[in-house]
Amino acid sequence: MSVEQTLVANALLAWKQALERLHKVFSSLSDEQLQKEIAPGKNRYLYLYGHYVAAHDSMHTLLDIGPRLHPELEAPFLKEKDRAVADLPSAAELGKLWDEVHDSLNAAMEKLTAEDWTRKHTAVSVEDFATAPLRNRMAILLSRTSHIAYHLGQFQLHKD
Amino acid sequence: MSVEQTLVANALLAWKQALERLHKVFSSLSDEQLQKEIAPGKNRYLYLYGHYVAAHDSMHTLLDIGPRLHPELEAPFLKEKDRAVADLPSAAELGKLWDEVHDSLNAAMEKLTAEDWTRKHTAVSVEDFATAPLRNRMAILLSRTSHIAYHLGQFQLHKD
Repeated sequence: MSVEQTLVANALLAWKQALERLHKVFSSLSDEQLQKEIAPGKNRYLYLYGHYVAAHDSMHTLLDIGPRLHPELEAPFLKEKDRAVADLPSAAELGKLWDEVHDSLNAAMEKLTAEDWTRKHTAVSVEDFATAPLRNRMAILLSRTSHIAYHLGQFQLHKD
Repeated sequence: MSVEQTLVANALLAWKQALERLHKVFSSLSDEQLQKEIAPGKNRYLYLYGHYVAAHDSMHTLLDIGPRLHPELEAPFLKEKDRAVADLPSAAELGKLWDEVHDSLNAAMEKLTAEDWTRKHTAVSVEDFATAPLRNRMAILLSRTSHIAYHLGQFQLHKD
């Protein structure tokens, strides 16, 4: 592996390890447990479960590697806050959506070359990218990995 | 910038952004506030403040880029749990230690080439690294960045 390929492999490994830990949290919860708030007055696990599926699905378009698979998840899990939408998927349904979205996303990300990762993502304009070349796809991958760690820390605090 | 240099710059930027957010949390707390637990029954802010200084100081040796500046912080903030050691530095002292450690660490990390980042860290043996080449310095940088996000999530949960 070249140096640049190794650096990409590092970032993808960190992403997958974080993702696995997150999935372990969500997939171990029953429908009843998913109704609990992660801390008093905060989002429910159910909401965050769907939030992650929707946020990661949107990485398809953000990284310009394909269409979102489930745009219908944007309203209940990204645009709206928890409890704004009453009819949310069950644990079993979210589990299927999780697998579908991540299988697709991870397969598409694996195909990107190191150079692809340094190209701009779709939320930055050509003009802005010219002056801020680190607003690239790799920045998205790294920030989404940290986003997972952020919530893992919160889950850990209240699991006892 | 080459592709590999850009990828390293991305990882360093993510690290620095996380570090800045973390520093903002700690440096805004008074000595009295630092005595508070981040959640009932958990570590105090003071302990985590020192924990981060000590953990990041140890990155000097882990990345093989110099000696630790303050090995005396290892016992109270890494080896021992919170409250095991009574005499801990004040907020003002920790602030100075923070700056000193991070100025040194960040300057040393800036000097590493992309290839340097793909070389092994000191906590993995030559034999193990031969079969697991992603146990490199970049893995350390990425995991320490996620470590910060992990605690930022916890702080956010209880700041209201």
